[in-house]
This record gives sequence, structure tokens and C-alpha cells, in this order.
Amino acid sequence: MPGDLDELTSEIRAFAQARDWHRYHAPKNLVMALSVEVAELMENFQWLTNEESDALDPVARSGVIDEMADVQVYLLELADRLGVDMVAAVRQKMVKNAVKYPAP
Amino acid sequence: MPGDLDELTSEIRAFAQARDWHRYHAPKNLVMALSVEVAELMENFQWLTNEESDALDPVARSGVIDEMADVQVYLLELADRLGVDMVAAVRQKMVKNAVKYPAP
Amino acid sequence: MPGDLDELTSEIRAFAQARDWHRYHAPKNLVMALSVEVAELMENFQWLTNEESDALDPVARSGVIDEMADVQVYLLELADRLGVDMVAAVRQKMVKNAVKYPAP
Amino acid sequence: MPGDLDELTSEIRAFAQARDWHRYHAPKNLVMALSVEVAELMENFQWLTNEESDALDPVARSGVIDEMADVQVYLLELADRLGVDMVAAVRQKMVKNAVKYPAP
Repeated sequence: MPGDLDELTSEIRAFAQARDWHRYHAPKNLVMALSVEVAELMENFQWLTNEESDALDPVARSGVIDEMADVQVYLLELADRLGVDMVAAVRQKMVKNAVKYPAP
Repeated sequence: MPGDLDELTSEIRAFAQARDWHRYHAPKNLVMALSVEVAELMENFQWLTNEESDALDPVARSGVIDEMADVQVYLLELADRLGVDMVAAVRQKMVKNAVKYPAP
Repeated sequence: MPGDLDELTSEIRAFAQARDWHRYHAPKNLVMALSVEVAELMENFQWLTNEESDALDPVARSGVIDEMADVQVYLLELADRLGVDMVAAVRQKMVKNAVKYPAP
Repeated sequence: MPGDLDELTSEIRAFAQARDWHRYHAPKNLVMALSVEVAELMENFQWLTNEESDALDPVARSGVIDEMADVQVYLLELADRLGVDMVAAVRQKMVKNAVKYPAP
């Protein structure tokens, strides 16, 4: 049974293909686009204190969610382009992180 | 049945709690960490042509996969902190994108 | 005699003071703003080839110059806030770079 | 009489030419490198409060200054590649900013 990310990846791939965007989607370009979306997300937080960032008003929150979605979309497009299984990649990285940062 | 992202989120949350990292994980800080990881990913691509970025050697590819995992981890931590369902967020954003960029 | 950067810094400082922005300009926040401006600059280049990036049309070029200025402004505001002499910092870093990357 | 930035630009250009780096320095690539350096700068601030970011210890401060220098170097390399006068660009942008954000 396909997981969430497989399903989203299929939908995102179909969306890009329908618009003939694949020719622009070299990994280098997708990484730049990913970085731009993270910055658009960050713009919502730049003048807040840490405390304020935990208590966004509904309008800010809605914008933040949209930017988070854009980040996820470009990350999945990059994974699809490179043939990377993101779920496996995260699990493998968390094993490395557990070695690097042992629990007390 | 929980999806991939729900399962990963639970694992990531447990990892951070075991290390008492939650007090550092204000959304503002998580967004900065997300941005730093995207840059570490980007560093692998900065001097490549678009064509070269589609043909990474195995060592570069392995490093890229690890950095992509770090990006996914911080995005899920941010979503968990803010109480955002990433799958729903992506679906909702893709509806908006379809309006903004109609298929030809 | 004051150099270019000293003069620009004085002008930028006066601009921020007149708007009472200093209370928002903690170094952490200025670095985030700097990062956001770099991303706005990068957005102009994300779908271009390397060759195209060397041949911007006048409209794109004008936008790029404005974003570069924003990057310079936030870098000087950060330097001013931290009491850093950017000219000295660059010279010192170039000495380190010359050791790290010896000329052939 | 040449200004600070003209002098630094000449030194940075000579440094890159001596290493034959100009062929890598397409504007697209320089912008990516600039973004990576900003992230290395940001990494120093990601887990700090705003208050802590105003009171860096000497070791952190020294690292921050080096990263700021790297940001300045890549910005000047980009300006040199594109034929942009950064001092004029900043002055022109500040005129626009004064219109956009009138002083109270």
C-alpha cells in the first residue's frame, strides 16, 4: 500500500508534467527553489521573539502553513528527480543522529 | 492507520524529548535550523552545472540524501510544534497552485 | 577620512533610528532578514542556466541590483550592531583564505 | 581616489584569478555560495534568544566575524561579475526605502 509521501509525490509529479516544468527541474534548480521557499517561510518569523513564534495569529499561521507546504513540495520533487525514498532517508539519518547525539 | 509522516513525526518527537531539546525548539529557531540544513544541501550543488546536478557521483549523492533527510526532519518538527498536518497542508496548497498556474 | 562603508553605515543607522527599528534589530533577527534578502536575490536566478545568469535582461538586472543592495544594507546593520569593521574583517579573512587555498 | 569597496573588490578579483576560479563564478553560482555563507553565519544564532545574540562570547564572535566576511566577499564578487557599483546600489535603494517606509 503506498504511503502518504508516495501519493503526494505522484500528484506533484503529474502537476509538473502537465505544465511541462520538468525541463526546468534540474536538481540544482530545485534546491534553489527549496531555499527560496524556506526564506519565504522564515520571513514570517524574522522580527518575532521565540515566544511570539509559538503564538502566531490565525492570518500569520495560515501563511506559514502555505509556505511549509511549498517547502515539502520542492523537497518531494527533488527526491523524485534524484530517485530518493524520503522515508528511508529519514530513518537512516536518525540512526546516524542517535550515534552522533547519544541519549543521556 | 497512521501514515508515513505521522510515524516519522512520532519517532522524531521521541528523539528530541529524550534529549530535552524541546525548550530550544521554538518555531523561530526550527525555521532557522531548517534554513541552515537547506544550505548544507545546496552546498553540494553550488559549483555544478544543471546537467552535472542530474548525475551526482555516489559519494556526493550519499551526502545529498543525508542533508535532504535533515531538511525533512526539521520540517516535521516544525509541523509538530505548530500542530500542522503536512499532508493536508500540501494538498490544500496544490489546489491553490492549480488555480494560480492553470494547466495548458 | 571615512570610507564608503563607514558613510553607508552612518546613513543606514540614521534611517533605522528615525523609524525606531533598533528594538527589532537583535543580531539574530538581522541575520534572518539578511537570509531572506539573499533568497529574494536568488529567486531571480533559480530557473536560469549558468550562461543565462551572465546575461540578465535590464528588468531582471534592475531587480537583482535592488536585492543586492538589501543584502549589503542588512550586512552593514549587523556589523554596526555587533561593532564589526567589515573592511578589516574581509582583509583578515582573505589572509586565512590564502593559507587555506594556496595559489598554484 | 578609490573607496574601500573598490579596493576590496580588486583584491578579491586578483585572488580568484590567481586560482582560475572565474570559470565557476557564474552569477547563479555566486548567489548560491552567498546563500551558503549566510547560512553558516546563521548557524551561530539558531538556538540563541534575541538577548543572547547581542552578547556573543569571544569564540562565537570570532566565528561570526569570519562568516560575515565570507558574505561580504561573495557579494562583492557578484557585484564585480555583474558590473554593479555596490555603493551606488545601496544609495539608490535607500531612496526607495525612504519612500516605502516614510519616517514618522
